[in-house]
Amino acid sequence: MLLSLAAASTAGQSPRHVSLVLTGGTVITMDASRRVLTPGAVAIDGATIAAVGSPADIAAGYSGDILDTTGDIVLPGLVNTHGHAPMVLYRGLADDLALMDWLQRYIFPAEAKTVSPEMVRIGTELAALEMIQSGTTTFTDMYYFEDDIAERARAAGLRGVLGETIIKFPVADAASPAESLARTEAFIKRFRGDPLITPAVAPHSAYTLDTATLLSCRDLAVKYDVPLLVHLAETQDEVRIIREASHRTPVGYLESIGFWAPHTVAAHGIWVDDADIAVLKARHVGVSHNPASNMKLASGVAPVPKYLAAGVALGLGTDGAASNNDLDMFEAMRQTAYLHKLESQDPRTLPAGLALELATLGGARVLGLEERIGSLEPSKRADLIIVGTNRARQTPLFDPVSQLVYATHGDDVKTTIVDGRILMKDRRVLSLDEGRVLDQARTFAEKVRVAVAR
Amino acid sequence: MLLSLAAASTAGQSPRHVSLVLTGGTVITMDASRRVLTPGAVAIDGATIAAVGSPADIAAGYSGDILDTTGDIVLPGLVNTHGHAPMVLYRGLADDLALMDWLQRYIFPAEAKTVSPEMVRIGTELAALEMIQSGTTTFTDMYYFEDDIAERARAAGLRGVLGETIIKFPVADAASPAESLARTEAFIKRFRGDPLITPAVAPHSAYTLDTATLLSCRDLAVKYDVPLLVHLAETQDEVRIIREASHRTPVGYLESIGFWAPHTVAAHGIWVDDADIAVLKARHVGVSHNPASNMKLASGVAPVPKYLAAGVALGLGTDGAASNNDLDMFEAMRQTAYLHKLESQDPRTLPAGLALELATLGGARVLGLEERIGSLEPSKRADLIIVGTNRARQTPLFDPVSQLVYATHGDDVKTTIVDGRILMKDRRVLSLDEGRVLDQARTFAEKVRVAVAR
Repeated sequence: MLLSLAAASTAGQSPRHVSLVLTGGTVITMDASRRVLTPGAVAIDGATIAAVGSPADIAAGYSGDILDTTGDIVLPGLVNTHGHAPMVLYRGLADDLALMDWLQRYIFPAEAKTVSPEMVRIGTELAALEMIQSGTTTFTDMYYFEDDIAERARAAGLRGVLGETIIKFPVADAASPAESLARTEAFIKRFRGDPLITPAVAPHSAYTLDTATLLSCRDLAVKYDVPLLVHLAETQDEVRIIREASHRTPVGYLESIGFWAPHTVAAHGIWVDDADIAVLKARHVGVSHNPASNMKLASGVAPVPKYLAAGVALGLGTDGAASNNDLDMFEAMRQTAYLHKLESQDPRTLPAGLALELATLGGARVLGLEERIGSLEPSKRADLIIVGTNRARQTPLFDPVSQLVYATHGDDVKTTIVDGRILMKDRRVLSLDEGRVLDQARTFAEKVRVAVAR
Repeated sequence: MLLSLAAASTAGQSPRHVSLVLTGGTVITMDASRRVLTPGAVAIDGATIAAVGSPADIAAGYSGDILDTTGDIVLPGLVNTHGHAPMVLYRGLADDLALMDWLQRYIFPAEAKTVSPEMVRIGTELAALEMIQSGTTTFTDMYYFEDDIAERARAAGLRGVLGETIIKFPVADAASPAESLARTEAFIKRFRGDPLITPAVAPHSAYTLDTATLLSCRDLAVKYDVPLLVHLAETQDEVRIIREASHRTPVGYLESIGFWAPHTVAAHGIWVDDADIAVLKARHVGVSHNPASNMKLASGVAPVPKYLAAGVALGLGTDGAASNNDLDMFEAMRQTAYLHKLESQDPRTLPAGLALELATLGGARVLGLEERIGSLEPSKRADLIIVGTNRARQTPLFDPVSQLVYATHGDDVKTTIVDGRILMKDRRVLSLDEGRVLDQARTFAEKVRVAVAR
């Protein structure tokens, strides 16, 4: 690409007109050779990356609106592989409780009384605002009224892999799993082929659905070739429940029933043994690691170095903000590095570059989107973020990748671009009315407060 | 206090004129009954808190410049109980290495070639800028040229407990421990009685000093009644070295030689057994817990719940930014809560309120300053911060304490006040020239880069 570019320039041909050229900053490409261009430039043509190279090469080959990124870091947008976006409305509602207490006294009553199309629309907009402001360009979601979530996410400009939660209890938008499956099929038909929204099938977990329903979910995912999202091996209670019923591990049980689809995304994957890891690898299951949620809820530590050694596709997630309590993928990177250094008793484990890879290309692979996103390469979708580096906390700057992982927060993201659309520029969100989104969330929070009042 | 206030008001007496009244926000007092006033107000008279109460009570009793904190949280300034401030200049210089590799290939060469009065002045100003911007009002320091550090910290307006590092190797400001002891005594004489700077004696550790020097350090701390700062039981290597030499644990060895002073502050305290914890309690040793450093360097997990159960004074620290990589005490709170929930396999462990207590009043106790700082109470020094709560990431707000610990960053601090002086107001730092501080740090970083170039 850059060779032909240089040739065009040498031959005196006029530069190709593109929509946007970012130039002057450090560009972390996450391409196959993991090039870091200091400085570098990216040419964006509509929704697509046209070229990545030195400022001089890009200037010679491309013309268009210039966005000067001098002093900043340009990198692929962050990919959040697990969450429940509207649950931002329950953020901090009740922390520091035993899991069952938290669920039964707060989350279930709050959900029973407040989950509605209005709630998910308000919650999705709040979550989208937070994600855009913290550099997440693709998110994964399992919740209710997923069509409303998809509409709001798409309007806000985010890329999403979204699936209606299918669970054995009656829920706000379905009286039964069969109804949720029907909603899911309609959702898939409505959104397949959408440039931003990838519809998915989202069975809650192996311990909250019967075998027949799990297989119906799998069949639906296969029929439409969409991702299959599931919670897997998150808690020791889950392991116990499944072992009592099937004498198997959660992974072993799902393997025994033939659950896996071509693109299965398993959230958490904490309580797995070596045989389970081999199964996940053999079945091409992607694992979403959610360190902050796993620590805060005391779920346990996923064997991330073992997954990596086995070649299991691995990405990072935040989980819902009711359990985390934010959607900051920079914190997910930092926690991942810290946690696995500590767990392995080796500070060389999970270096910064690997944490960044998991949050970008790794997440894209987990979601089956690695041909479209996860790195800055020609012909990929233009999902990228521009991060400032001028705060005291980030000074001096010896290594941009280390600085991103160990000293940078979501708040340092200046500009967020998805599919070539600028969603936030210099901290001003363009695709959402920030004041309105915050106001409606605060107003709705009063309903939540009343719902859990005792 | 408020009774007499109300009486004055009722009697129609004119309000007392004070320098500053903060009113309208949520006030987290950290007083004996842990009152959270929603809304509340704080009257500041010079360097001292005059009164804390409801906005109406304070308005009736006090007049002065009003700072409207509506929508914000007002809380005691954060107390960082362990660090090496000038090492911000080595932030991110070399991450993800084995400890000895990191020290021998990077940190020791960088220190040998760059530590100087100029370096510590530039580094202290950068660290002070970062601390003021992230709500730390008191910091603890062990480094070199400590008089220069004290001067710059005092000029920047921070409160500090500072001690010249005493170690068996020749260092930048002393050829021997004896020389460092002499420098320490001069430093104590110069700064004792200073309203902001508490001088301390800072022997590096039990494995980097001989018994005689450790006892000389103790004697000096006793002679001047100043804190004794020491690294303690940080790594398994330290335990092995001391066990080979003395057949004791690090704590057991220091107990056997009678090392403890009336105010000893032990940093890390990871590798301790139950007998060690009993010794630390009996000797009134305060422990500084540094979760981010301990995780990133894979040092281990301090038994924080055991310390708390035993009644050992416990505070939080960041450690130097070369190992952390920032000085954000909000992150220290969050990591402390997360880490000990995970370690204890119980999400109820270390609730948000306790994390906040450790970062404020707990730190004050560890440093022997609990009569002066750590809570918002009449007659204490006016060290407090005002934190914004209006970001998407902090919305909605159900519980201010949970929100501070689980969803707030240092960058959310709007205003920082130490000893009644406003060091930062609405994110504008008043006691330092931010541009100059950043520029001189970036310029100096080039010397560091050259020093470690191979």
